Amino acid sequence: MGEAALLACDWGTTNLRAWTLDKRGEVVAHKAFDLGVSRLEPGEAGERFQAEVQPALQAVGLPAILCGMVGSNLGWTVAPYADCPAGLPELAACLAAVEAHAAWVRIVPGVRCEGLAGAPDVMRGEETQILGWISQHPDRARGRHVVCHPGTHAKWVLVEDGRIVRFVTAMTGELFAVLTHHSVLKSEAPADDVAAFDEGLAAAGEGEALAARLFTARARVVGAGKAAETTPSYLSGLLIGAEVAAVPKLIGLSGRESVTLLGEPGLCARYRRALDARGVASETFDGEVAALAGLYSLYRSGARR
Amino acid sequence: MGEAALLACDWGTTNLRAWTLDKRGEVVAHKAFDLGVSRLEPGEAGERFQAEVQPALQAVGLPAILCGMVGSNLGWTVAPYADCPAGLPELAACLAAVEAHAAWVRIVPGVRCEGLAGAPDVMRGEETQILGWISQHPDRARGRHVVCHPGTHAKWVLVEDGRIVRFVTAMTGELFAVLTHHSVLKSEAPADDVAAFDEGLAAAGEGEALAARLFTARARVVGAGKAAETTPSYLSGLLIGAEVAAVPKLIGLSGRESVTLLGEPGLCARYRRALDARGVASETFDGEVAALAGLYSLYRSGARR
Repeated sequence: MGEAALLACDWGTTNLRAWTLDKRGEVVAHKAFDLGVSRLEPGEAGERFQAEVQPALQAVGLPAILCGMVGSNLGWTVAPYADCPAGLPELAACLAAVEAHAAWVRIVPGVRCEGLAGAPDVMRGEETQILGWISQHPDRARGRHVVCHPGTHAKWVLVEDGRIVRFVTAMTGELFAVLTHHSVLKSEAPADDVAAFDEGLAAAGEGEALAARLFTARARVVGAGKAAETTPSYLSGLLIGAEVAAVPKLIGLSGRESVTLLGEPGLCARYRRALDARGVASETFDGEVAALAGLYSLYRSGARR
Repeated sequence: MGEAALLACDWGTTNLRAWTLDKRGEVVAHKAFDLGVSRLEPGEAGERFQAEVQPALQAVGLPAILCGMVGSNLGWTVAPYADCPAGLPELAACLAAVEAHAAWVRIVPGVRCEGLAGAPDVMRGEETQILGWISQHPDRARGRHVVCHPGTHAKWVLVEDGRIVRFVTAMTGELFAVLTHHSVLKSEAPADDVAAFDEGLAAAGEGEALAARLFTARARVVGAGKAAETTPSYLSGLLIGAEVAAVPKLIGLSGRESVTLLGEPGLCARYRRALDARGVASETFDGEVAALAGLYSLYRSGARR
């Protein structure tokens, strides 16, 4: 492990994760901050970065590269979206410049594509993980790959020859949250019952008529005597099952293609189970590791300019 | 208009509507109460009925017939569900008996059928509206009819020869409420923009991949410059459009059958517009009028026993 040469940050809506890396990309230090952009006052991102993030990682004066919602209008500065197809060269070419303690600081742009219903679809942060996953698996830099990034706003992404060519966002995580907190399905129980999760998967059908399938989460408790504590697990299976059945088709996939799951490992495991139940092959990669690799790759490409 | 002979109540989750009727079923008096069962303390329904409802309608001592959630475990007494197929004779045969000021008081049972995913589906209140609609349109007492009752938990009902044979519940109204109040789509604007409603209908597709289609409600504002105040209208169109496209198929319908909309006239008008956009014929009947007619029919059949 060498001397710190770069500060890399995945700065999202709810959290900021920062690493210092040596010049070969090895991690020197790591720290998480409760500084997600949704918690910031307008205009204070740069100030907090200089006052808290750089000093805590002994990175004052080091070059820094940042991805995620920090590049949105809620963050530090708007890093305009790159249009699809977008890969490492395209994103490295349009890093947005800011400055902190006189150091080189760049923010990775998000990616935009033509979405459903005539409105563009967008991502911020997931593109960096995808580039990092490719950088760690050079055999994936060619050919056609389907990547799923589960989360509040899950992404299904078609990657061809190292470039993001098309994607679609599904509000699966947000549906789970609002239904679990605010609807007739509300519950404070953990979503950790595997049998109920599988029951939810089986009730997802082909992902059509979700509003009716959701009612089964109520009916199985009031009409079929299932334990109310299993509702979150059932709901998780139902929503994820409906997503994996129907959403890939919206970007022209058959839904049978093998899937690369990229994200938080626990959530990826739920998606893997849902894909397994449909006989769809998948492999999983840790999103945080991928984000770090992507930031390093973008720095190496972008800093040469 | 004759002398009051019967007290009829549609007593649901949020409201109680009461009418006195003469012996031919004509309305003598009407009053609404803020006494929905969700607002009651356990066990107090009967007491409030005697103390407030009967006296306010000068109906102390008159026979009374009640439908809706008052027959659930949140209400006065549990009126056990009647299984499908269920029509006027079947429901009139199993009215649940309670007593108030020594008068004959009966509660209409709900209806149950085999639902999705192995759990029973249930209704309470809608069955009375359906019987009332049939009693007002004797030509509908024969043949096969599709009835849609929009609402928080919308019902699609197949009626054959005057009996409810099969139905399915869709949480469309509840999804609208939780998303409008608690999600990234939240808004206090009214859902009264017809162009945005139609845009939502067009974005509903065939009712599959709803979690992804919902994200277009966000993307059209942040990515395509549509006014945020139009989000509730768009969301209403999207959810209703997805329901009418996919839910009827779950009970073995083609989705092309003409539909009888029975319910609150403003909400029925939204569904009518969604059905029109798919080229599906519909006719609308006022749910309150139908409830009253259904209560009167059930009284006439049930009181003879």
